[in-house]
Amino acid sequence: MPDIRIVFVGAKFEGNIGAVCRSMANFDFGELYLVDPCPIGDDAYRRAKGGSDILDASRKVGTLEEALEGCFLVVGTSGIVTEGDKNYTRIPTTAREFAESTKKYPEKIAILFGREDTGLFQEELEKCDVLIHIPSSRTCPVLNVSHAANVVMYEIFQAGHGTEHPVPADPGERELMQRFFDDLLEAIEYPEHRKEGTRVMFRRLMGRAVPSKYEYNTVMGVFGDAARIIRRLHGPKWG
Amino acid sequence: MPDIRIVFVGAKFEGNIGAVCRSMANFDFGELYLVDPCPIGDDAYRRAKGGSDILDASRKVGTLEEALEGCFLVVGTSGIVTEGDKNYTRIPTTAREFAESTKKYPEKIAILFGREDTGLFQEELEKCDVLIHIPSSRTCPVLNVSHAANVVMYEIFQAGHGTEHPVPADPGERELMQRFFDDLLEAIEYPEHRKEGTRVMFRRLMGRAVPSKYEYNTVMGVFGDAARIIRRLHGPKWG
Repeated sequence: MPDIRIVFVGAKFEGNIGAVCRSMANFDFGELYLVDPCPIGDDAYRRAKGGSDILDASRKVGTLEEALEGCFLVVGTSGIVTEGDKNYTRIPTTAREFAESTKKYPEKIAILFGREDTGLFQEELEKCDVLIHIPSSRTCPVLNVSHAANVVMYEIFQAGHGTEHPVPADPGERELMQRFFDDLLEAIEYPEHRKEGTRVMFRRLMGRAVPSKYEYNTVMGVFGDAARIIRRLHGPKWG
Repeated sequence: MPDIRIVFVGAKFEGNIGAVCRSMANFDFGELYLVDPCPIGDDAYRRAKGGSDILDASRKVGTLEEALEGCFLVVGTSGIVTEGDKNYTRIPTTAREFAESTKKYPEKIAILFGREDTGLFQEELEKCDVLIHIPSSRTCPVLNVSHAANVVMYEIFQAGHGTEHPVPADPGERELMQRFFDDLLEAIEYPEHRKEGTRVMFRRLMGRAVPSKYEYNTVMGVFGDAARIIRRLHGPKWG
């Protein structure tokens, strides 16, 4: 199984924290970060059952940044899927596709679950490389957070007991590819006000595809050549 | 989706009844029978959220026999899987296999979930035509009953719906994007002998990411600009 940290942001009910711990134990997860949680007492432990050790070992931090330290891939979960597809930050992959595509992922992954009422805020979702979603009823789509976490961990556990994928690119390669894409945007004088949106979109797109080393290197080669040629032809102005 | 009745046997905590109702609403289930349940009050409704109508409409019965009336296939769930296979009543299929195999099942199915502590009794399990099981940790295999019900209903919902995505780009758009990528390869004078391999790789990569219309258009814009700038700078030779 990949190395995964569960991050529960702004939990309001300790029962849900306990329930998440139990699910973690049920699917062999171990590392839990709680960002600014509610007070934790008996109810959390009552619900945690076999996951009480995980609750004991959980780390409480004040900010999301602290919770993401050391994680390379940041994964957000959202119960709301925008119908139109303009808002790129809300285009998710399913929990199952995500589990399949990352089952041999070599770096630490953080999976974020949000508040019981308001979920993850927009600025938190924007920190995510991938958004995952649990397909559900159109009329009543939003799952209880511990049930959502349970399904996501269930899918990862199932994926860990199946077939294989090619070696994915490592973090250095991924970062380099993103830099080459940025560089290409610079070289073509991409409109400043759209740059950030396009960068995030590209990162998400690549996050969903989980490219192999070979694919990363090839795409990077194309971007790099294009940017270099443009700069060379334009001369120092573009330097 | 098949016609399914959820049967919760001997519920001890009303919160779990409410949670099951919410999961039912999340995955478009409607019919709930409660066999000899604990008293139901505010906590159940608080947990039920969008499933409170299902809770209102649930039928309370005294015996399992009453709950199974009119059902053709009876399905039991168990958190405990016997290692040896002597006891045939404990040999389960996974929730996923079950969901796949019954997605076109024409008769009414009852799915039984048992007590929070002791699950379904042996004589109840013996009434079942199929046993289903959720693969989980060896060290902590037993899920909370509402989480188990949630996973089973989730699997049935997935099997009935296939994977949904935000409007993916249509074939014309996809083709256009591929052409823009080809064009970029031309513009950068990509080595002829590697061109075909890189084209196919890019198409596969995009296929896996299943870009939305917005993503396609954005990426296409970047490629198009890059190719155009290179051509303009190089002059007619590249025309």
